[in-house]
Amino acid sequence: MKSSVPSASPFHLPNLATRVARRQQTPIAAGSDRMRFVIQLALTNVTAQTGGPFGAAVFETKTGRLIAVGVNVVERTNCSLAHAETVALTNAHQALGHFDLGMDGMPRLELVTSCEPCAMCYGGIIWSGVRKVVCAARASDATAIGFDEAPKPTNWIAELKKRRITVTRDLCRDEAIAVFRKYQQTGGRVYNARKGPM
Amino acid sequence: MKSSVPSASPFHLPNLATRVARRQQTPIAAGSDRMRFVIQLALTNVTAQTGGPFGAAVFETKTGRLIAVGVNVVERTNCSLAHAETVALTNAHQALGHFDLGMDGMPRLELVTSCEPCAMCYGGIIWSGVRKVVCAARASDATAIGFDEAPKPTNWIAELKKRRITVTRDLCRDEAIAVFRKYQQTGGRVYNARKGPM
Repeated sequence: MKSSVPSASPFHLPNLATRVARRQQTPIAAGSDRMRFVIQLALTNVTAQTGGPFGAAVFETKTGRLIAVGVNVVERTNCSLAHAETVALTNAHQALGHFDLGMDGMPRLELVTSCEPCAMCYGGIIWSGVRKVVCAARASDATAIGFDEAPKPTNWIAELKKRRITVTRDLCRDEAIAVFRKYQQTGGRVYNARKGPM
Repeated sequence: MKSSVPSASPFHLPNLATRVARRQQTPIAAGSDRMRFVIQLALTNVTAQTGGPFGAAVFETKTGRLIAVGVNVVERTNCSLAHAETVALTNAHQALGHFDLGMDGMPRLELVTSCEPCAMCYGGIIWSGVRKVVCAARASDATAIGFDEAPKPTNWIAELKKRRITVTRDLCRDEAIAVFRKYQQTGGRVYNARKGPM
């Protein structure tokens, strides 16, 4: 393999998310505080009208050191794949300079996300190398406001476990749902849902 | 939603893939010729040692006009999500300037890929707005050389169909498998597979 190409973050983050991330210089010890941090990211994305009501971040599990953040920037970047989780994982890869976040010698990393991963992000998590996923809202909560999250395998949590990735759900779920509702109330667009006959 | 952020292609393509794409000024009429074009992309990625043995492209279904290409650039860009399909879809979004490739007024677009999508790319296809997916190798062929493609829902083809996306499989399958073999023979890295006990 030839040497890698140095590149900036492939997905341009809104200024507000970048500022929130830069401000977070101290590690976040408690799991619920990590989750509140990403729900805050989701909320800033809604109030600043910079994207969908989703936030995510990669943390070092043991210390709570913040590695990278993501918010949904699908509309802003004209890229349907730019979910909070894919953006956070991509930025974590860039921050740590490696395509495998689970490589030998890397501290154990976790993805904290304000919503359970959609079908795409479930697959992305497996490739990434994170060892833990913590979710607030359920995929069904995103579906309830109109997004087509698409089915994952019914045993997706077991599939992650087989790959030594643990899943925690429903942490601060109501707070994440409140951000979905705010998005809905402020007329946020539910893009690219096209299930059913036409 | 505030105006979108102009951005270059988020995933830097190898020069060779860019040259192959630029050279393809005329539409490609036959489906099998479209597939041979993406298998050729996969092969250049292997011979130039710029990434995994996978190529993909987005075409206008009716005319065969090439919209965007992708090759696997996971190692090169330090991003585990940079599969041929995600790169091609992302580049198609950039080329057409919209986050929904299936929006009203857009010509019907198809993703032609040298390998059946992994779990992540299956989900990404649903979000993207392409209306057709054409695959050469099976996911099991990629698994056979060591990649962990991860399970999709067992009825994934029906799930795509529900969303008005058709799937064609096994077009030029042997030619795509030959590129996998070449990758294996030349010592290409099978990255990020970690299924099973440890």
